Amino acid sequence: MTSLRVGIAGLGTVGAGVVRLLQDNAELIAMRAGMPVLVTAVSARDRGLDRGVSLAGLRWHDDARALASDADVDVVVELIGGAEGLAKSLVELSIAAGKPVVTANKALLAIHGTALAQAAEESGVVLGFEAAVAGGIPVIKALREGLAGNRISRVAGILNGTCNYILTVMRVEGKDFAEVLADAQALGYAEADPSFDVDGVDAAHKLAILAALVFGRKVDFEAVHVEGIRRINALDISFAEELGYRIKLLGIAQEAEAGVEMRVHPAMVPKAALLASVDGVFNAVLAQGDFVGQVFLQGRGAGAGPTASAVVADLIDIARGSNIPVWGAAGGLLSASPAVPISQHHGAYFLRLMVVDQPGVLADVTAILRDHGVSLESMLQHGRKPGEAVPIVLVTHETNEAAIEKAIARIAMLEAVLETPALIRIEPS
Amino acid sequence: MTSLRVGIAGLGTVGAGVVRLLQDNAELIAMRAGMPVLVTAVSARDRGLDRGVSLAGLRWHDDARALASDADVDVVVELIGGAEGLAKSLVELSIAAGKPVVTANKALLAIHGTALAQAAEESGVVLGFEAAVAGGIPVIKALREGLAGNRISRVAGILNGTCNYILTVMRVEGKDFAEVLADAQALGYAEADPSFDVDGVDAAHKLAILAALVFGRKVDFEAVHVEGIRRINALDISFAEELGYRIKLLGIAQEAEAGVEMRVHPAMVPKAALLASVDGVFNAVLAQGDFVGQVFLQGRGAGAGPTASAVVADLIDIARGSNIPVWGAAGGLLSASPAVPISQHHGAYFLRLMVVDQPGVLADVTAILRDHGVSLESMLQHGRKPGEAVPIVLVTHETNEAAIEKAIARIAMLEAVLETPALIRIEPS
Repeated sequence: MTSLRVGIAGLGTVGAGVVRLLQDNAELIAMRAGMPVLVTAVSARDRGLDRGVSLAGLRWHDDARALASDADVDVVVELIGGAEGLAKSLVELSIAAGKPVVTANKALLAIHGTALAQAAEESGVVLGFEAAVAGGIPVIKALREGLAGNRISRVAGILNGTCNYILTVMRVEGKDFAEVLADAQALGYAEADPSFDVDGVDAAHKLAILAALVFGRKVDFEAVHVEGIRRINALDISFAEELGYRIKLLGIAQEAEAGVEMRVHPAMVPKAALLASVDGVFNAVLAQGDFVGQVFLQGRGAGAGPTASAVVADLIDIARGSNIPVWGAAGGLLSASPAVPISQHHGAYFLRLMVVDQPGVLADVTAILRDHGVSLESMLQHGRKPGEAVPIVLVTHETNEAAIEKAIARIAMLEAVLETPALIRIEPS
Repeated sequence: MTSLRVGIAGLGTVGAGVVRLLQDNAELIAMRAGMPVLVTAVSARDRGLDRGVSLAGLRWHDDARALASDADVDVVVELIGGAEGLAKSLVELSIAAGKPVVTANKALLAIHGTALAQAAEESGVVLGFEAAVAGGIPVIKALREGLAGNRISRVAGILNGTCNYILTVMRVEGKDFAEVLADAQALGYAEADPSFDVDGVDAAHKLAILAALVFGRKVDFEAVHVEGIRRINALDISFAEELGYRIKLLGIAQEAEAGVEMRVHPAMVPKAALLASVDGVFNAVLAQGDFVGQVFLQGRGAGAGPTASAVVADLIDIARGSNIPVWGAAGGLLSASPAVPISQHHGAYFLRLMVVDQPGVLADVTAILRDHGVSLESMLQHGRKPGEAVPIVLVTHETNEAAIEKAIARIAMLEAVLETPALIRIEPS
């Protein structure tokens, strides 16, 4: 091969970014790839749109699936998005045609990753997805290759920049979720329909991918426990600060006694923890390996430039002849370790109650916790307002999720407890 | 090939760590490498020593060079150390014999890296050195592959854990260098002869390697400007805190107008900068790419486990058939961009003078700075002690190193200036 000929499907921000990167740094990339990496064909919905990059001389396919059979395309870059439909067909057709595929599509990988990895293995082609997780941070490469000698016991990450931005602004400006979301939408940092981000689905797709990778198991999105950030309010953020924590939406995959825990939820992390200091739209991943110890990576998790950087890294790897199994090991060798449900999670909890300030409430609450084997590390209540609603914050020692859920169900039934109790898991790092 | 047979030269802490990692995680590594990675032969000075790992069944060579010609060794791991002598011969002989080499030897790479890379290229074998820089952090892989699509304009790193530990303890405990060094030596965190670490030589070896990698140029240790941390005292650390900075020993490689700047020296970084928060023995690297933006990596830079993790990652890459040129591009394509001397550095400076507190001193000092075109951002002086020695701290705007050096030479000659002025470069991140 004297050059790597690339066909790009999808010319949105990221697609145009990939074209621009391959043009701007063509000489450098040719040097590092050992051959020129050239876009030869593209496909997108609107031919007329000005994308700020030159598409002169490129073959245009109205149907992206034609890239799979284009004899002048060596590798297909899928930037259409979505777990089904055109994106999925294009990736399947390309693999079947013996063409390597590079994609930024986390939903596709999280939901159909097992079948696609098997197809890629059978075809002997690369399925590159560095761009699918944490944007420009080379986290797939770091985990799958850089730390490949390690048994990884835990990966925790800030995997959604929109949520991290919202939580950061909520903390810094003391505002509530709805207000910050509206501002973020006005600024273009959040989508008009924000649910994919703020309900944790996007982070869960990425976490499912990371978990498959570090534990060498089939990707299992359905087994990821997912909670978003809508229920986080200014009050809890301010209590977190007071207790020495920051609230972050984390994706966590960790070894547990009975298998693998996979979860995405708001978590309190100690202010001194590495993940606590990651603010704004940045992403970060913290991995714990048995020999390497903790490795921490931080960078931009989205945007044209960072995502294009990851796509092009995969293209350069393909040009160099690299071919690593999608999940880091041949499909037949993947682990069958079961996913552990969140009810078996073991950890510490932050619990906030809104109660009527009257004698005996605290005694009732603590008695219920004691009856469920939940012991307390600390308690916070500010001032007294007899007869009025006041927040009480309880921090538990390590306990079982099932136990605390049962305790909370009983606490919620107390007459003096006015709202659904707020429960936030505490993570050590 | 049905297995990768490894010969290890040097069974110190790291060598024993590699043996242990390949034994402990044998199954996992075989899965990820696509074949078993087995130690078959070793060489070290003392056969009798208990290294805490089983060497049963391994062939023992009294002369490490015999590993190069051992027909049952596919890849040689060099952990002897030192830029010359046995380590160098072994690597040369192994490459000449067509065997890939993995090494943790930064001195060897920094000083003989160009010739060794050429030899490896001619022999068509891998020369892996992930373990040579920043221990367990997969920084070589991240820069050479993960960010390969980017033009990197700057890399800055905390590359020596001993120095970072000493500076951290100096800050936290308010002690002076000599005292903390003695404590560190007693604890085994610093060598009996600490000069390699505290004079910046070790960091400079690593920085030379990083610079070659990110700028695609021949490694050029001689062109690295090197200053160590012996001259840093508690007074400057406390002034740094007051001004909002932390003092770190940084290795920096950055594009300048006339070529490439490569330097290792104590630097003041803003407290909010990522590198400022890296404390103790940790290492970290911050890279600035044109498309990816800033990427930050942090982890353990030394020790048996982290270094073994990096060595084994290289072995797994070799088993998978990866073969990337040592400096990220074929030798004939490497850039000839010149190294820029430190005298051409452009930046802000922290300048501390010990002066006799008498009228007119400050007027003299500021007049000299003005005459050399150096303008001031701020000035600190605490209290007044007429007739006694007091520190004055000046922070400059961005200026030229040659200009400030000339100004300081004249300031040092003022009668009221009692000691050699302390000058510390300020870095933006």
